[in-house]
Amino acid sequence: MADATGTPPELLTVSPFDAHLGLELLHCDAERVEARLPVRPELRQPLGMVHGGVYATVAEAVASLGTNHGVAADGRVALGQSNSCSFLRPILGGAINAVARVRHRGRSSQVWDVELSDDDGRLCAIGRVTLAVRPYPGSPRG
Amino acid sequence: MADATGTPPELLTVSPFDAHLGLELLHCDAERVEARLPVRPELRQPLGMVHGGVYATVAEAVASLGTNHGVAADGRVALGQSNSCSFLRPILGGAINAVARVRHRGRSSQVWDVELSDDDGRLCAIGRVTLAVRPYPGSPRG
Amino acid sequence: MADATGTPPELLTVSPFDAHLGLELLHCDAERVEARLPVRPELRQPLGMVHGGVYATVAEAVASLGTNHGVAADGRVALGQSNSCSFLRPILGGAINAVARVRHRGRSSQVWDVELSDDDGRLCAIGRVTLAVRPYPGSPRG
Amino acid sequence: MADATGTPPELLTVSPFDAHLGLELLHCDAERVEARLPVRPELRQPLGMVHGGVYATVAEAVASLGTNHGVAADGRVALGQSNSCSFLRPILGGAINAVARVRHRGRSSQVWDVELSDDDGRLCAIGRVTLAVRPYPGSPRG
Repeated sequence: MADATGTPPELLTVSPFDAHLGLELLHCDAERVEARLPVRPELRQPLGMVHGGVYATVAEAVASLGTNHGVAADGRVALGQSNSCSFLRPILGGAINAVARVRHRGRSSQVWDVELSDDDGRLCAIGRVTLAVRPYPGSPRG
Repeated sequence: MADATGTPPELLTVSPFDAHLGLELLHCDAERVEARLPVRPELRQPLGMVHGGVYATVAEAVASLGTNHGVAADGRVALGQSNSCSFLRPILGGAINAVARVRHRGRSSQVWDVELSDDDGRLCAIGRVTLAVRPYPGSPRG
Repeated sequence: MADATGTPPELLTVSPFDAHLGLELLHCDAERVEARLPVRPELRQPLGMVHGGVYATVAEAVASLGTNHGVAADGRVALGQSNSCSFLRPILGGAINAVARVRHRGRSSQVWDVELSDDDGRLCAIGRVTLAVRPYPGSPRG
Repeated sequence: MADATGTPPELLTVSPFDAHLGLELLHCDAERVEARLPVRPELRQPLGMVHGGVYATVAEAVASLGTNHGVAADGRVALGQSNSCSFLRPILGGAINAVARVRHRGRSSQVWDVELSDDDGRLCAIGRVTLAVRPYPGSPRG
């Protein structure tokens, strides 16, 4: 189902998995995305720290949302190609605060850098996400 | 709480986040880990494919479990340092089947390669996880 | 300049930079590449170990050659998109022995895993290289 | 051979491999490094672009120099652990201009981000380098 601009609305909001974890989208445009994920007990690994897969999920989510924001009106969609995260400092509570910036906007791929910080502003993880840009299935231009 | 060998049992079973997603551990030793994650609707991104963060979570989980299996009896624990996944082919249903193999077992770090396949045996994602090995907090050797 | 099959021959042999370092191509097909680089003093970092950039160069070279081997006859060429190496154990002398295996052969990209070993067969570095596959400039199909 | 501060001088200048390629160090401290590598024909891949291994080499070099700058006086040294580069836009001539910034300065590891641009200031590659920090062999604190 597309709106008047031809953009399927599900491409511009948090996905089912992101919603399941509790991701809150704070800002989204084609160059910068901000989001926040409150830490809950079920997001942890055995030592009580946020699980590495949670950081990777948030990075993938915000990079995909920013890419879709820039390409969905053209009948195209982001498909994750690679996701690489480095874990610098544990988060034990509060929230994960994500800021994503686009580093490359090519015709067929984009690269985003994502910073993930705790509520005290300390950088806790950094992610780099590469996304392929492909025709949206069913788009008139697809 | 440690067993007779001094190993905290929570290091050798799926973590809270892994359990929340439904990860099933099939085999675990210090060189190889196998696990399975049935695909449910809440694990998906907007196009109905498994979310990239889910693959990263599974890769992180199995590499951590294999590392802990090899080091926990010595009062040490795995801490994820980096997680890099490439997404090759979407999974829409069935399960994610993960096989992890250790590539490097150093004194202070390990590197694991993880293959993630669909139920037809097609390789859908590959992950590389680097883990620091540190004293377990509270261990007599920590 | 292309041969009878339309393949520019420079795509199937070591590149200027590879030749400058002394890379020797031992085997090349679309699924597997083997090469060898003798260690010389100018390939070292300050402690006398092989420089990390040398491993990355060898990984990039063999993955590109294997990709080109599979696509050049169709008027297409490999363009490196990302290169990720983990350094496991230093090499001080002898040669770097590389074996590359394709993990994904898509229409527009390929992913290769590369193992880099010393002359005693010990795994010293592992690389993962993603290559875009694009029309060769000037190809009739380009 | 160490100077009055105990720092082996070879840790703070370009390495044999960097010098072989022609790397020029412009600025170096524990948080930021700048360097420049003029493009010569032997640094190219078959299409005339700078070889991906050259970008990885420059990234490894500047991250190692910055790390050594911060730790060498303590009898410690950087050892490359991983190097991950994304290639965004080709460089055909002029120079590669590198700016490296530290993202994490831990007790036993550092993480650096490196931007590699052409002479027109366009971002052409980005690298992320993780370095282990270890006692310098032969250091009184080693």
